[in-house]
Amino acid sequence: MKNKAIVLLSGGLDSTTVLYYAKAKRFQPYALIVDYGQRHRKEIKHAAKIARLLKCPSHVVRIAFPWQGSSLLDKRIKLPYHTTIDPHKIPSTYVPGRNIVFLSFAVSYAEAVGATGVFIGANAIDYSGYPDCRPEFFRAYETTIQRGMKSGVQGKAIKIYTPLIRKTKTQIIRLGRQLNVPFELTWSCYQGGRIPCGRCDSCVLRRKGFEGAGVVDPVEMKK
Amino acid sequence: MKNKAIVLLSGGLDSTTVLYYAKAKRFQPYALIVDYGQRHRKEIKHAAKIARLLKCPSHVVRIAFPWQGSSLLDKRIKLPYHTTIDPHKIPSTYVPGRNIVFLSFAVSYAEAVGATGVFIGANAIDYSGYPDCRPEFFRAYETTIQRGMKSGVQGKAIKIYTPLIRKTKTQIIRLGRQLNVPFELTWSCYQGGRIPCGRCDSCVLRRKGFEGAGVVDPVEMKK
Repeated sequence: MKNKAIVLLSGGLDSTTVLYYAKAKRFQPYALIVDYGQRHRKEIKHAAKIARLLKCPSHVVRIAFPWQGSSLLDKRIKLPYHTTIDPHKIPSTYVPGRNIVFLSFAVSYAEAVGATGVFIGANAIDYSGYPDCRPEFFRAYETTIQRGMKSGVQGKAIKIYTPLIRKTKTQIIRLGRQLNVPFELTWSCYQGGRIPCGRCDSCVLRRKGFEGAGVVDPVEMKK
Repeated sequence: MKNKAIVLLSGGLDSTTVLYYAKAKRFQPYALIVDYGQRHRKEIKHAAKIARLLKCPSHVVRIAFPWQGSSLLDKRIKLPYHTTIDPHKIPSTYVPGRNIVFLSFAVSYAEAVGATGVFIGANAIDYSGYPDCRPEFFRAYETTIQRGMKSGVQGKAIKIYTPLIRKTKTQIIRLGRQLNVPFELTWSCYQGGRIPCGRCDSCVLRRKGFEGAGVVDPVEMKK
């Protein structure tokens, strides 16, 4: 029988690639989609569509960060538009504790269904500005759940897999192509518009990644 | 200016005592109340009343654990009724990752308002069956947020305070009396009935605690 794994699925390029990766590694994936009041709520629909396509069980968890404090949640704060992104600065799109909260639900889900792992598409190359995307954070998180969960104290601690952590966007897209990821179903733009804005950090990274990989992005964005 | 602290407030005896303790230690408390679909949703109203009484800012976060798996969430699973509670066994009221999820929201709230600490009424004496109530879990959690949050990497890591961790229920009640905790406003029973059932683990522990402290519980429970 296959081992079950929870995959945190946002509907973006990275997490979708991770979902296909987990499947290729012979896990039975369960998708966890988090609706946290993000500007780009559109990605949730994309995530749900991708989970259905793969026929994997999924849950949407609806939460809120009522204390705001991030341009990704608060439309009054301007989204950053950079021609060059400084990966060492914490951007205004940082949501305090976002991955900490997401992982908590994922490990709870994992334990409830008896999954042995949680996959997350965190990336320390383009997003090293976010402390909750760094390898040392994930290692500490593993220790925490080893000590604080039933599975952990019973010697069957849930593992956190971060297969993209040291990959560039170009490498992620190449991997996605190998795995037949349906890029056309993914949504990256932080703005929730009809078509991707082409200007936000997420669009800029996506465009560069596809250019670097020499692959045509099936999703058209504004110039 | 006082340091701010988030207090996880359930409306029970322990967390209410912690709220008064944080105030006595000259923190400015912010209450975080979590509505997670618990059987005893009644405690949420109690928590809100207590926060209002202390005039402390508060947020109620509504979440769900749609994967269930705990008698505290799922009314089809019987609540445990023990005449003696084995503190080393994990009870059916264990919710996978509950304190991990609660703390995640608390540290997010803390960072958003610039609080230096999070208080939680976890107790390793009566609840050592719950792995997420043990000191080694909280120490690991501190390391995780030190590495995974803006405040942490900037050298101002949020501290997790567990002032009740090694106290018996009797000691907690004595402390509460010193701090003038309004015991009459607290709710402990896992059943959400009109008056406490007197039989669930939480009622049994409460009764023993008051008896041990030689204090009359202002909240009457069924015999």
